[in-house]
Amino acid sequence: MSELTIWTYDWVPEGPRGFVRDLRLRWACEEADLPYVVRTVAFDDRQTNHLDRQPFGLVPFLNDGELEIFESGACLLHLARKSERLMPRDPAGEAETLQWTISALNSLEMVTVPWWFLNICGEPDNQLTGWLGQRLEHLENVLAEREWLAAGRFTIADLLMADVLRVPLVRAFGDRPASEAYVARVTDRPAFRKAHADQVRQFEAADAKRAEMAPG
Amino acid sequence: MSELTIWTYDWVPEGPRGFVRDLRLRWACEEADLPYVVRTVAFDDRQTNHLDRQPFGLVPFLNDGELEIFESGACLLHLARKSERLMPRDPAGEAETLQWTISALNSLEMVTVPWWFLNICGEPDNQLTGWLGQRLEHLENVLAEREWLAAGRFTIADLLMADVLRVPLVRAFGDRPASEAYVARVTDRPAFRKAHADQVRQFEAADAKRAEMAPG
Repeated sequence: MSELTIWTYDWVPEGPRGFVRDLRLRWACEEADLPYVVRTVAFDDRQTNHLDRQPFGLVPFLNDGELEIFESGACLLHLARKSERLMPRDPAGEAETLQWTISALNSLEMVTVPWWFLNICGEPDNQLTGWLGQRLEHLENVLAEREWLAAGRFTIADLLMADVLRVPLVRAFGDRPASEAYVARVTDRPAFRKAHADQVRQFEAADAKRAEMAPG
Repeated sequence: MSELTIWTYDWVPEGPRGFVRDLRLRWACEEADLPYVVRTVAFDDRQTNHLDRQPFGLVPFLNDGELEIFESGACLLHLARKSERLMPRDPAGEAETLQWTISALNSLEMVTVPWWFLNICGEPDNQLTGWLGQRLEHLENVLAEREWLAAGRFTIADLLMADVLRVPLVRAFGDRPASEAYVARVTDRPAFRKAHADQVRQFEAADAKRAEMAPG
């Protein structure tokens, strides 16, 4: 098996620790027992220092042998081909996983991230709030009737959807008991807990190095 | 080959005609010479009348024989498995197509759609404008150096990205000659023109029926 390398930043401020999207890839590899290493690009000048590898200056991106692939959603779909633990192999199960994976990226996160951004810009009652409420309500109705989004089992669709929903501001929005139980259940998986702890530990360790290098 | 059915609304107001996302699926089928039929759910009460088939009350969704799949991005990835014309079959070409497909959905459309929405709510200078400008500028730099996003040829990544970028407000934002030439080039394809004309014609034809049924 070719070696998997997950690329992320060498450091981030405290706020995003535990939420940088390399976590999605670490988590998937942990679920599937796929060996991987983590390597870094500099957080400083990130808008320009790795555009040849990620044209928007973002992380993560993934090396799989000779292949290089960016966008966390694309990396997850790529990893899912390597292990049935991430996506079932029957056509119906695969189609369900695919639709809910894209749903997390394009029907939920397309609203949650801009809404969150307007919130932290100081606009908690912004024009996206009604739209967010609708989408979350529809999803609550789905999650009230099933344990997993696709194929009656854990898949990358749950990994992604739980990652979208666990953002504290989103989690605190409204009263959605099924969604809350879902997030708690999915993020209690050992693979999530390991990936989360590893990411936080990596960025904490980088604090010391960064302090040493700072001009005195 | 099993029959493909693309589901959309039975009618929409003039504004969204030519932009409803069933167009993405029609377009892909036209590119790949995949036979399909179009069927409809009622636009009225759309938030509740087909939740068993699309849990957010949206369109399109697709039937492929026994399979049912929603989310236009997921449907495109599903259709791409049926025809090499939509996605190359070598691992590198496939990975590139996948990453740019997800990029259109989660790095571009995640900004363009909420920004557009705030615009039509009367906030043209909204807080998402800087973010939109950055993303579009990064993409402009990519498109200045290549004709197609992935694998040196047309793929579903171009279909999706051009569909994201052709929204009039987005197209008019800033001066991005490479992106403009790209949108013009991709939407000049016969498959796009047929899909677009078919959608507009369908909704126009529905006007007459709707007028008949309106209480006199």
